[in-house]
Amino acid sequence: MSESTCPIARGVSCVGDAWSILVLRDAAMGITRFDEIRKSLGIAPTILTKRLASLVEDGLLERRRYSERPPRDEYLLTDAGRDFLPVLVMIGAWGQKHRGGGRLARYVDAETGKPIRAKLVDAETGAEIGTRPFKIIEPD
Amino acid sequence: MSESTCPIARGVSCVGDAWSILVLRDAAMGITRFDEIRKSLGIAPTILTKRLASLVEDGLLERRRYSERPPRDEYLLTDAGRDFLPVLVMIGAWGQKHRGGGRLARYVDAETGKPIRAKLVDAETGAEIGTRPFKIIEPD
Repeated sequence: MSESTCPIARGVSCVGDAWSILVLRDAAMGITRFDEIRKSLGIAPTILTKRLASLVEDGLLERRRYSERPPRDEYLLTDAGRDFLPVLVMIGAWGQKHRGGGRLARYVDAETGKPIRAKLVDAETGAEIGTRPFKIIEPD
Repeated sequence: MSESTCPIARGVSCVGDAWSILVLRDAAMGITRFDEIRKSLGIAPTILTKRLASLVEDGLLERRRYSERPPRDEYLLTDAGRDFLPVLVMIGAWGQKHRGGGRLARYVDAETGKPIRAKLVDAETGAEIGTRPFKIIEPD
């Protein structure tokens, strides 16, 4: 999929599985150490090791040693990883709207305390994405 | 994951794999029939069958019979499926920025012909998401 002309296919070839997405979510919230992530996700260590390695290889996370004895690493978002956060926010907005039953965490503006309502707009026209027709132009 | 308080975790429990995301992308572009999707994705029929069934079960696609003889179904986006499109757009924006090399399809406004630049804002403050600190409030 990574050789596709489609930017969506290229994106999902890096982060197209649930665990990778949740690892990035944790990293954004400051959960960056192996054991913390493992506990937060309830994920098998072998699977987490693989996911972290592939996120590092794809340039979304950076490994940093925080203890020499015993050797311990943490995983920090790179610029490319941080640029993925709006994807998480949109997934969260969808989850809130369509899977919002029961006990649910809320995202609020830290200063105003008001709930964040994510809206995707075209920076060019200011129109909400989906309200105007768009076309996909394949490369020559 | 679907019982998590986190709306992101609930979202990825429905669409946390690359094939499901690409099936939704195809549906958004009018590629809705089994054989068309299979060809577009180069996916094994058994895997596609599973993914379609789970997207129908999760309420993102709706199955509709378009031919009785031979029996043939197509898969259309539901409202919940359409609401997922901004996620795809954000993944595409990420792919364009961070995996943009070589031949790449472009998304343009159908009327103005200008490239679409997706930007995620808070509908409340109008600020771009990520430029203001936010908090996650866990349910009581």
